[in-house]
Amino acid sequence: MTRQQLVEQIHQKQSYLCVGLDTDLTKIPKHLQSHPDAIFEFNKAIIDATLPHCVSYKINTAFYEAMGLKGWEAMERTVNYIPDTHFKIADAKRGDIGNTSTQYARAFFEAMNFDAVTVAPYMGEDSVRPFLEYEGKWAIVLGLTSNKGANDFELKQLVSDNGEAHLRAEFLYERVLRSVAKWGTPDNLMFVVGATQPEEFLNIRSIIPDHFLLVPGVGAQGGSLKDISEKAMVTGPEPSVNGSVPSGRSDVGLLVNASRAVIYASGKEDFATEAKAIAEQYQFEMKSYLG
Amino acid sequence: MTRQQLVEQIHQKQSYLCVGLDTDLTKIPKHLQSHPDAIFEFNKAIIDATLPHCVSYKINTAFYEAMGLKGWEAMERTVNYIPDTHFKIADAKRGDIGNTSTQYARAFFEAMNFDAVTVAPYMGEDSVRPFLEYEGKWAIVLGLTSNKGANDFELKQLVSDNGEAHLRAEFLYERVLRSVAKWGTPDNLMFVVGATQPEEFLNIRSIIPDHFLLVPGVGAQGGSLKDISEKAMVTGPEPSVNGSVPSGRSDVGLLVNASRAVIYASGKEDFATEAKAIAEQYQFEMKSYLG
Repeated sequence: MTRQQLVEQIHQKQSYLCVGLDTDLTKIPKHLQSHPDAIFEFNKAIIDATLPHCVSYKINTAFYEAMGLKGWEAMERTVNYIPDTHFKIADAKRGDIGNTSTQYARAFFEAMNFDAVTVAPYMGEDSVRPFLEYEGKWAIVLGLTSNKGANDFELKQLVSDNGEAHLRAEFLYERVLRSVAKWGTPDNLMFVVGATQPEEFLNIRSIIPDHFLLVPGVGAQGGSLKDISEKAMVTGPEPSVNGSVPSGRSDVGLLVNASRAVIYASGKEDFATEAKAIAEQYQFEMKSYLG
Repeated sequence: MTRQQLVEQIHQKQSYLCVGLDTDLTKIPKHLQSHPDAIFEFNKAIIDATLPHCVSYKINTAFYEAMGLKGWEAMERTVNYIPDTHFKIADAKRGDIGNTSTQYARAFFEAMNFDAVTVAPYMGEDSVRPFLEYEGKWAIVLGLTSNKGANDFELKQLVSDNGEAHLRAEFLYERVLRSVAKWGTPDNLMFVVGATQPEEFLNIRSIIPDHFLLVPGVGAQGGSLKDISEKAMVTGPEPSVNGSVPSGRSDVGLLVNASRAVIYASGKEDFATEAKAIAEQYQFEMKSYLG
């Protein structure tokens, strides 16, 4: 999916919601747990119910890998089931030396039909590049995450080595945003940004004004949709889209993810109806921020 | 596998070789490519041939994921085929927020019978901890990698924030070694260290004197076995092993990996015999360094 297509979907649906399919056999409704294809059946019902209210689905690969071969199969069936109108993210946090990252890119972009993969930046440029070499596919690189461990390395400050003057020493995550942004474009590169302080979004937008941000941390992980939307939304159309987005519309530049808050909205037989209701609430709120 | 068992295996075999099963359908011998279980058949032959000459096998998960469901199945069959005398590493570079890392740990330690998983440290403590909570299982955390991209972040210097005095500003990878070492012990934590300069091993050993290092970069990625062994081997027994290693023996503290140099030693029908010959050469050289 291209940036232009994604922006179109957002304006059409008046939603920038991504539904996270962190599906765990022990957490889905009892009546489904004994079904031979429990995970896929659950996902299918969630997708059918939430489709009009979101523009993206994010599959957290860990939950599927934990179930072994059956889990991998459920992941393949799920991604095949999601219609091409929706942006399909493999939340896999992959990244390795070049020739190995090439294999990961093949796994998610060729063996499966994902639009994007989340990528860990620690190993640098050659570990990210292979994910940027597919037309219409995306790398979503970890910038600032919202977990406690972000303090261990992401929020450590670096000694300046590039001659650029900053008001204070750069955080590692800021260097990651600056460096990685040079390897791709706003048309094939997004960042995972899960700021716990709303002010951080203003700073992040000053570094990467145009890139789409994938924001976890709404719902179970805390974080206010209002703060994120006010501070991180891209308000103008992105020049690289060649004016193809009708004038006056913004590029939005946000995908806000909710996982557990949506998919486990009810643990009973009405789980899909309740998931739909929560997704619709997000959509309703998002509509007001899209203005 | 415990540290004590691994050290025993190394002394018994007089080898600290890890054979990397980066198996790629397009690179295995032609006569096997049309076999319905080509990947497993190739791995089985390599394992049978190299078993007496190595102490560990490392499965690079990317190569299996790139083949979809069939690949995941071949990975499961391969890890089940490796005998418990050998240390089984999932080279998967996983790492995510705590509850997701817990799922990855389940994938490799419960759904499959790996002894260790390689872990990316970017997201900090809660992303690493779940891999350290299994008795007899290991996290192998990325420290310094040998690829060009190591210069982008791993080799950036940090502003001191912990009050410790260092001769020069710490590299990010040094902070990673110091911080992560506090989260585990030499009995459940190793580091991936792929130094391109032999001198770096002396520095690394001054930071983590006891931990096992998994060293890629021998063979296809360059790097001298002699340099690594002279500079990075643990020469004394590790105190935490309770004196169970006979006195006079060292804990070694090294697993040196060779992938392509071994498994693709020949592209013909004699591939297993040639792989064995190369593995035996490594073992012969390692014997001389074990003294």
